[in-house]
Amino acid sequence: MTVHLVGAGPGDPGLITARGLELVRSCDVLVADALVADELVAEAPEDALVISRAGMKQEVVTRLLVSYGVAGLDVVRLKGGDPFVFGRGGEEALALAEAGIEFEIVPGVSSIAAVPASALIPVTHRGVSDRVTIASGHGAEGGEPDYDALAAVGGTLVLFMGLDRLERLCAGLIRAGLPASTPAAVVSRGTLPEQEAVLATLADLPERAGGLESPALVIVGDVVAVGAQLTAAGRLAAAAA
Amino acid sequence: MTVHLVGAGPGDPGLITARGLELVRSCDVLVADALVADELVAEAPEDALVISRAGMKQEVVTRLLVSYGVAGLDVVRLKGGDPFVFGRGGEEALALAEAGIEFEIVPGVSSIAAVPASALIPVTHRGVSDRVTIASGHGAEGGEPDYDALAAVGGTLVLFMGLDRLERLCAGLIRAGLPASTPAAVVSRGTLPEQEAVLATLADLPERAGGLESPALVIVGDVVAVGAQLTAAGRLAAAAA
Repeated sequence: MTVHLVGAGPGDPGLITARGLELVRSCDVLVADALVADELVAEAPEDALVISRAGMKQEVVTRLLVSYGVAGLDVVRLKGGDPFVFGRGGEEALALAEAGIEFEIVPGVSSIAAVPASALIPVTHRGVSDRVTIASGHGAEGGEPDYDALAAVGGTLVLFMGLDRLERLCAGLIRAGLPASTPAAVVSRGTLPEQEAVLATLADLPERAGGLESPALVIVGDVVAVGAQLTAAGRLAAAAA
Repeated sequence: MTVHLVGAGPGDPGLITARGLELVRSCDVLVADALVADELVAEAPEDALVISRAGMKQEVVTRLLVSYGVAGLDVVRLKGGDPFVFGRGGEEALALAEAGIEFEIVPGVSSIAAVPASALIPVTHRGVSDRVTIASGHGAEGGEPDYDALAAVGGTLVLFMGLDRLERLCAGLIRAGLPASTPAAVVSRGTLPEQEAVLATLADLPERAGGLESPALVIVGDVVAVGAQLTAAGRLAAAAA
């Protein structure tokens, strides 16, 4: 009679944790995010109740979790990435705790590092960046992000956002003081077979990454140049093999 | 004949990825960080060469990986957390690529969110924080971190550091403008059975967390108060169950 808030990882079904997979395989009820891989949903027991939260309001999801918890069922709430990193897991956990239901957080591989890594971009790199700031590419209530704070913090920026805002984001960061030549990348559908990445600069990223699809992550900073170097060297290695 | 740079996760052996575990179970050579759980090292095949990198310089580790790669062996380099988040995986990958050896990055659950989560602290929470900055609690060459930039960025701060520097860190952040009443926490040995956490404020954290052991993570920001709320509600739920 516990509700497990489990991170499914960034997309590739192999990137769920061993413990998360074990919980999925033995649950009574699985409530899965729309973006969770079908292969993981298929791991639930045949007699489990499997629910996709696609199209469901957060309030409804939370109410469902509480009601299954009250009913004494073993529930897995399978969330994209990590439940506590832009995952609204805190809200679900609070509702469960307040209803007197035991819950457990099972962390997952977050997109914030795994998606850059899938384009060979390390979010930190010795002598290049020892700081990472993760933010939404839009502000609260859909407004503009705090470009001044993002441009001033230094190190790597990782931004979650819809690609329709890419041009405004890059222009905003340049206006706030980042050089137009700052290396910047978009990784679309990271860790999945359909993955695409464009490594460029703040100045030319909007034009070059125009055709990519959401969900996407924007990475800004000198680590993008390390990614370009790794990609080039890796291609040579693969060609020689 | 590939070298796989695999994230072992934050400590709890159940938090390795399914793909990472599969690679460990079929490798020829396993080169593991000192902090990786014994249970994971024990998953290597009986006839695999198992090497602990404890006490080895980074240059030696890198040279070993290249030489096993050249020899055509299937190598797993098992690293604490995620290889590309403060993991020096970028350096190892570059050396491999430059030596003409194919490599693969298998992301892991990073401590940056999993350790706060193990103390029920979500690094983001709707209406509380939509920005996270991860940094080292000491600057380059062991100097002071850039307190002004860290205090100005807003949102949650997650700092890797030795606890001997905790007092200087808290004082530095207060001097740079963060209110002394800002919620702040230390989580020591997160996700392991020996885990300990102290949730306090910037002003009283050094005194209250004085006895904890490294490795530890410091979390600063209003999400720490969400963690305190979740802990209290969770205790009530457990008591009622």
